Amino acid sequence: MSVIKVAILGFGTVGEGVYKTIQSHAEELEGLLGKKVVVAAVLIRNKQKKRNIDNDVLITSDFNEILSLPQLDVIVEAIVDKEPPYTFLKQAIQKGCHVITANKEMFAHHGNELLMLAEKHHVSVGYEATVAGGIPVIQTLRQLLNVNRVSHVQGILNGTSNFILTEMREKKQSFASALSLAQAKGFAEADPTNDVEGYDAFYKTMILSRIAFGDEPNWEDVEREGITSISSELIEAAERLNLRFKHIASISKVGGQLKAAVKPALVGKSHPFYSIEGVENAVNVQSDIVGSITLQGPGAGMFPTASAVIEDLVFVCQDQPTNKNFKLTTTPAFSKEIQEDVKEFWLIHGLSKNYRNPSIVFVSKDTEETAIIQATREEIDTLMNQQKARCYFQILGEHERAYKNDDVTIAVL
Amino acid sequence: MSVIKVAILGFGTVGEGVYKTIQSHAEELEGLLGKKVVVAAVLIRNKQKKRNIDNDVLITSDFNEILSLPQLDVIVEAIVDKEPPYTFLKQAIQKGCHVITANKEMFAHHGNELLMLAEKHHVSVGYEATVAGGIPVIQTLRQLLNVNRVSHVQGILNGTSNFILTEMREKKQSFASALSLAQAKGFAEADPTNDVEGYDAFYKTMILSRIAFGDEPNWEDVEREGITSISSELIEAAERLNLRFKHIASISKVGGQLKAAVKPALVGKSHPFYSIEGVENAVNVQSDIVGSITLQGPGAGMFPTASAVIEDLVFVCQDQPTNKNFKLTTTPAFSKEIQEDVKEFWLIHGLSKNYRNPSIVFVSKDTEETAIIQATREEIDTLMNQQKARCYFQILGEHERAYKNDDVTIAVL
Repeated sequence: MSVIKVAILGFGTVGEGVYKTIQSHAEELEGLLGKKVVVAAVLIRNKQKKRNIDNDVLITSDFNEILSLPQLDVIVEAIVDKEPPYTFLKQAIQKGCHVITANKEMFAHHGNELLMLAEKHHVSVGYEATVAGGIPVIQTLRQLLNVNRVSHVQGILNGTSNFILTEMREKKQSFASALSLAQAKGFAEADPTNDVEGYDAFYKTMILSRIAFGDEPNWEDVEREGITSISSELIEAAERLNLRFKHIASISKVGGQLKAAVKPALVGKSHPFYSIEGVENAVNVQSDIVGSITLQGPGAGMFPTASAVIEDLVFVCQDQPTNKNFKLTTTPAFSKEIQEDVKEFWLIHGLSKNYRNPSIVFVSKDTEETAIIQATREEIDTLMNQQKARCYFQILGEHERAYKNDDVTIAVL
Repeated sequence: MSVIKVAILGFGTVGEGVYKTIQSHAEELEGLLGKKVVVAAVLIRNKQKKRNIDNDVLITSDFNEILSLPQLDVIVEAIVDKEPPYTFLKQAIQKGCHVITANKEMFAHHGNELLMLAEKHHVSVGYEATVAGGIPVIQTLRQLLNVNRVSHVQGILNGTSNFILTEMREKKQSFASALSLAQAKGFAEADPTNDVEGYDAFYKTMILSRIAFGDEPNWEDVEREGITSISSELIEAAERLNLRFKHIASISKVGGQLKAAVKPALVGKSHPFYSIEGVENAVNVQSDIVGSITLQGPGAGMFPTASAVIEDLVFVCQDQPTNKNFKLTTTPAFSKEIQEDVKEFWLIHGLSKNYRNPSIVFVSKDTEETAIIQATREEIDTLMNQQKARCYFQILGEHERAYKNDDVTIAVL
């Protein structure tokens, strides 16, 4: 009986999860694909390290040994960094292998090249695991996008940041101690820059943008900000106003242009992200026919990510056109636009004493320093340029509803 | 250029939504399918009623006129009741038409027969609109189920009930006045029995069960209870204990048997359904690899339901095997089982004064009459048989987490 031969590049959390899942779900995979799925090789860096891998699996630190395996069907890439993974996957595609990646940094940079190369060589590229771990975001978006015109996509895409913000609020921890706990629990790396400075979420956002809008904004125009500026003091002030800080990726079309931002924002109780806590991820899609849909689930971890990889494995082996995703989606011309000059709600902090501006509506005030205001983006920019406030955060969601209930005292000054 | 000819049976909220969406999204549909989608006929009951339908569309109250249209490709059924829709769709399939239905009652009763008949006649059956409106539950489950072993599916499947429970809690309304408001807003029928007695949710649950577990329990063994027994007093007591009533469908495998219930239950802040409010629907799937995934969105309404129908339209016209859903899913043998004799958390009301039972743990107490206890299902049954309490509701979710935080005072009596 013929088999499907898989090689796994990298044996960290994701690589090991994929390996274990292929073993534990061998029966389902064989039932689905009509062939046994066999892990033929694993690429590792340190050959000395003891690993729980069967004896008949080739364990090597030389990618060429893997590439020269006869009849290799699929290469699963679960390394980090752009290189060597990009080069490895290019070579794999050129050799006629399907490839599946969980590497968002590499895929955000080189996804388009890999997809084009794969098309040329009649193989598929699976990348469901690059965005929001086990949540089937890409498949769901692809389906919704058949007919719906997407106007706005929002996501909590970095579990580490969300965990830290949750700990700071719930347990009244400082940023530093919440980060230490995240590191102790294995949610954050020794160098947490990628997570807490928003780079990880940024890469995922760019991939999500291509899926939802068929395109991405210029990377330099995207506001990227991590959670390091969110102090306990700010979190407590927000809580008194019934608001929560979340690190939110947001992509929408404004004036014919794709606009994206990845930064902390505030959400009230009526926002679907209000109760996304800990390492959970969530993606909200607003589109013209169906309205607002939210998906929520584990954003990372050994098995959730492995689940996404295995779903891709089934897809590529069934010859489903995963690599056509970017092209199949709604073209930018179809997507609904949102307006720019509306008055949004903002939390401003470090406000100058006795600041008055007739065009800005003060909705609620926490202390002398912190207040909720209603203003356009331009007005906020003016405020900051004049150094009338130290920092500001947008409050997302259905504002009118949020401020009509009893949660927030409406105290126009 | 050839066209895709569609007939719509019924021109109520869903039928009209489908008609309007086909008109407004003609360009996307043509781009996707390579053919223009044309509504050729609409079946209505009352020919006198004025409707906003183009002049070139056949409007008839005689199904035979529709059936005898040449080259009809797809019939969309958006009527209510089991008959005549079942007979109509059987005839349509026999004539070689793809069929798409939004009718849960009919599909819960006759889905299997329609799917088998469709297979015989090489056409497809789309039924995404039967469960949770616009939320792409069926497609998502189908994808997750490729490899994941589902252990438990829960859902808030009736928007009307959820709206009433939300109004009762948020605005401190009685059941009667919340129901009136739901009727005024068009969320509930003049006769609300189907919604508030749990029949609508029951039909959806049976469809969901077949998708998730490949089978359904005996209908007579399913506990079906509506929300009419939930008094304002109970809702307030629950709120004081940081719990919310939701009308929840639950399907799982216990001791090799599929077990389902559709009834009110309580959820704490850590449960993904805690903040599902108003007419929203949600579905939570727990499976072995990916863990817990929740989908949330509009459960009903003209356009959300139309969106699901249109997604099915794209699927059936692209010759995707929608009718294979039931067979492709994980067979019962693969699904993970859950244990029965664990101590669950329950809210009991109308407790006998000074009731003591050493095996039951009192976790928290609201008034003399209402308390949270920890007990097995058997113990609760005994309690009720001995008439020691008036009613009880299960508290779903991650109990340990829920009761370790400060939300609930742990007050073992």
